[in-house]
Amino acid sequence: MKTYYDCIPCFIRQALEASRFATSDENIHEKVLRKVLLAVSDMDFSSSPPEMAQFIHRIIRKLLKNDDPYREVKEKYNLFALELYPELKKRIKRSSNPMETAVRLAIAGNIIDFGVFGDLKHEAVEDAIKNSLTDKFFGDIDKLFNEIFSAKKILYLGDNTGEIVMDRLLIEQMPMDRVTFVVRGGPVINDATIKDAQRTGMTDLVHVIDNGSDAPGTILKDCSDILKKHFHEADLVIAKGQGNYETLSEVHKNICFLLKAKCHVIARHIGCEVGSLVVGNTGR
Amino acid sequence: MKTYYDCIPCFIRQALEASRFATSDENIHEKVLRKVLLAVSDMDFSSSPPEMAQFIHRIIRKLLKNDDPYREVKEKYNLFALELYPELKKRIKRSSNPMETAVRLAIAGNIIDFGVFGDLKHEAVEDAIKNSLTDKFFGDIDKLFNEIFSAKKILYLGDNTGEIVMDRLLIEQMPMDRVTFVVRGGPVINDATIKDAQRTGMTDLVHVIDNGSDAPGTILKDCSDILKKHFHEADLVIAKGQGNYETLSEVHKNICFLLKAKCHVIARHIGCEVGSLVVGNTGR
Repeated sequence: MKTYYDCIPCFIRQALEASRFATSDENIHEKVLRKVLLAVSDMDFSSSPPEMAQFIHRIIRKLLKNDDPYREVKEKYNLFALELYPELKKRIKRSSNPMETAVRLAIAGNIIDFGVFGDLKHEAVEDAIKNSLTDKFFGDIDKLFNEIFSAKKILYLGDNTGEIVMDRLLIEQMPMDRVTFVVRGGPVINDATIKDAQRTGMTDLVHVIDNGSDAPGTILKDCSDILKKHFHEADLVIAKGQGNYETLSEVHKNICFLLKAKCHVIARHIGCEVGSLVVGNTGR
Repeated sequence: MKTYYDCIPCFIRQALEASRFATSDENIHEKVLRKVLLAVSDMDFSSSPPEMAQFIHRIIRKLLKNDDPYREVKEKYNLFALELYPELKKRIKRSSNPMETAVRLAIAGNIIDFGVFGDLKHEAVEDAIKNSLTDKFFGDIDKLFNEIFSAKKILYLGDNTGEIVMDRLLIEQMPMDRVTFVVRGGPVINDATIKDAQRTGMTDLVHVIDNGSDAPGTILKDCSDILKKHFHEADLVIAKGQGNYETLSEVHKNICFLLKAKCHVIARHIGCEVGSLVVGNTGR
């Protein structure tokens, strides 16, 4: 998916939020803001939003002299989601359709996206969980169930910290010996890296690899050979979140996107309402 | 009020929206976006938001070769508000406190602000009107009533098109021979100019002047001598909307601000919640 002009003000907001996560020094906020405005004024808008964000967040980290401005908020949301875990696990167990409930919770977890909501509150996550249990899906959930149980190799592309705990709940319902979970190769926004997979118990459950890239999505040409091999060999790719959708929506592969459509740009591109629980199977 | 860093992404969004109001040519949208990003990267952030917006919208109009990109949407909202007028007029008449109801409606009209809501819908205006009738005021409404009836010269600084019809409803409750209504000196965003005052019947009711400035607020040093004279001689200045607040909140004068707090930046500055009906009397 290309970058829409509507994404540009969002990148500027992200630059400001990233600098505020890293420091309270307003001079640095201004420096980051001016530098990003200047850089974006001259960028190639034909690339996908995660490609632009990768470039912008590299500038931000360099200016901030901080390789992970979102470190604290990432830890906070991992912890918050781990606290919710036992109750959510019980809810899945009690449910008449545990697999469906787990998919709903995994999508609800996608609300924890500091690329979109810089001032996200715990209450908003709790509301997203509550609503996800009754909202209609946009897409074919039964097709996903069939594919999960017939696939020999499933590649699950993770997205954000906190959200990774909800991914774990879903993966626990799947044939785990066939699943490889993927995290980003380096810190960008609040996306999950290998540290978060360890922190949240994902590495104890399934095979986890990092994709070798610091983009907030899956830009295949920017990823490691190992990621590419897994991607190529998988029968089914489950791709969580907007960033993975934005980078893979035109890739010819059996991909099931799981995401909450959080902004007008992505909702328009998918053809759904903002807030929809998207279960999308594209390409082949 | 100074420009907060949070205002910067908003200016970028405005640039995009202004170009879309003017043309469907995406090449021009991109040209405007890039030029405004570049200009803002080097601007003085210590000036007020309307000062920055004045500069930015001059660039936009020049690039678009269009002296009024919001022309159509302004006419649309004047017409929409004129259609509501008879019913709102009746509502004021039937009300147990017509003056208070008129103040409520005048503040509700302040929702028609394309600086904040580029995709405003008629339903949102109708909701704002409905809610304004029962919401609590943030400020002292009785003080305003006393001042209105004791003042010899009232200067009413208007804000937006459409909204100007609701200002008319309030002015009709006031001692009209003492009121001078002020519009902007030239088109900027969807702010009301002399044409809109004529279009909506304001010029038939009270003395109307333009302020000689194309800023979306009242920057006194940028205004005409006539405006300055009226401002100096007024016992009471009623200043509608965020732009007038942002440019006059530190001016030493008997000013009553009437506005709907539409964003976090202004709400924080005032000390109220987003959405509040603000009736504020500052300075002296």
